Amino acid sequence: MSLVVTTLSGGLDSVTLAHTLAHGGDDLIALSFDYGQRHAKEIEHAERCAKRLGAEHHVVDLGSVGSLLSGSALTDAAVAVPEGHYTDASMAATVVPNRNAIMLSVAVGVAVARSADAVATAVHAGDHAVYPDCRPAFIEAFERETLVANEGFIRDGFRVLAPFLHLNKGEIVTRGAAIDVPFADTWSCYVGGEQHCGRCGTCVERREAFELAGIADPTSYVEDRP
Amino acid sequence: MSLVVTTLSGGLDSVTLAHTLAHGGDDLIALSFDYGQRHAKEIEHAERCAKRLGAEHHVVDLGSVGSLLSGSALTDAAVAVPEGHYTDASMAATVVPNRNAIMLSVAVGVAVARSADAVATAVHAGDHAVYPDCRPAFIEAFERETLVANEGFIRDGFRVLAPFLHLNKGEIVTRGAAIDVPFADTWSCYVGGEQHCGRCGTCVERREAFELAGIADPTSYVEDRP
Repeated sequence: MSLVVTTLSGGLDSVTLAHTLAHGGDDLIALSFDYGQRHAKEIEHAERCAKRLGAEHHVVDLGSVGSLLSGSALTDAAVAVPEGHYTDASMAATVVPNRNAIMLSVAVGVAVARSADAVATAVHAGDHAVYPDCRPAFIEAFERETLVANEGFIRDGFRVLAPFLHLNKGEIVTRGAAIDVPFADTWSCYVGGEQHCGRCGTCVERREAFELAGIADPTSYVEDRP
Repeated sequence: MSLVVTTLSGGLDSVTLAHTLAHGGDDLIALSFDYGQRHAKEIEHAERCAKRLGAEHHVVDLGSVGSLLSGSALTDAAVAVPEGHYTDASMAATVVPNRNAIMLSVAVGVAVARSADAVATAVHAGDHAVYPDCRPAFIEAFERETLVANEGFIRDGFRVLAPFLHLNKGEIVTRGAAIDVPFADTWSCYVGGEQHCGRCGTCVERREAFELAGIADPTSYVEDRP
């Protein structure tokens, strides 16, 4: 059993990750990052996930950082959220510069302060095409940087865990279904209405994940077909 | 001429760094990080430095991060600020876990968003003994991680600049004096009174820097000798 600091957005991937770690017997400190993004609704879902798993949960306010990283559709209200497939080039507009390095660096700080054994992230193969900080080379370089930066203060054998690194979203759903992850209680939509919009990049990707997995999609979408 | 995102605490080192970069013709975006540390007074000095150099300046509020990184004397009011020499083992209490990786990751995010050519940090040789994230190996691993994390989005030839990496504080003062850095307008004290206390680790280190450089110390200390 390990103590793991995990990033928990409240989306399908990170909730499945938290359940996977808890299922494996790890104790969790879950961190949700609020950098002024539109879908604060995700954070409510993160909160519920942490409660369900008996995990410690903190919301890290990075609003001050988000306002400096303008140009991304996720933090800048002036940039429209693109519709269409998540892996399209248009999705590059949703890149928050250096996002995973920022979030994981904070997670590492908490891990060192709390003598945790690892940090965990739900990055997956479906993101490799557009997001350079979701690729195996990033996880490897980040882990190396982390060990060097905290030498003498970090636990022996410390790891940056990315168990979904080589899985697509369909495979994540398959894994989650096997351990009864309550998918209806996850949030993906970038638009942030009362229901999932069904049209934005992450909604399209979410539908596709359930189709790929051959598992019924429990999500209620505003638009049934994109 | 380059656009450089530089971290600017308002202390002797980072102010000298900003002056050095501006003296070399770089345009600066200066970032001060407030993670709830006691010496918010530093930030006023950072502000004045940026104004003097005509640099854009932003204060990044990481208070939410600071409160999670307890155990450090810099952010946790329950831990006493240690007195004595800055390089003593007791100074390990002033380590904010993963501090440079967190601040520099945010700086990189801003650099990518603004198409800057580099980020800069004032880490120096005097910190190598206690702070693993001030060592050359860290700068190297961080630069590599940064290029991987932002491939395709970051400018060609992007660098993590650490021009003081192999200098001690005395040598930094010597460099600063050569370009007329107004040292009286920098702030080092961890205690955060109206004047420098003259006794805390960074005050002791500050005095020593001027002594090593053989340059008159313009600082007004509460206690003349430690």
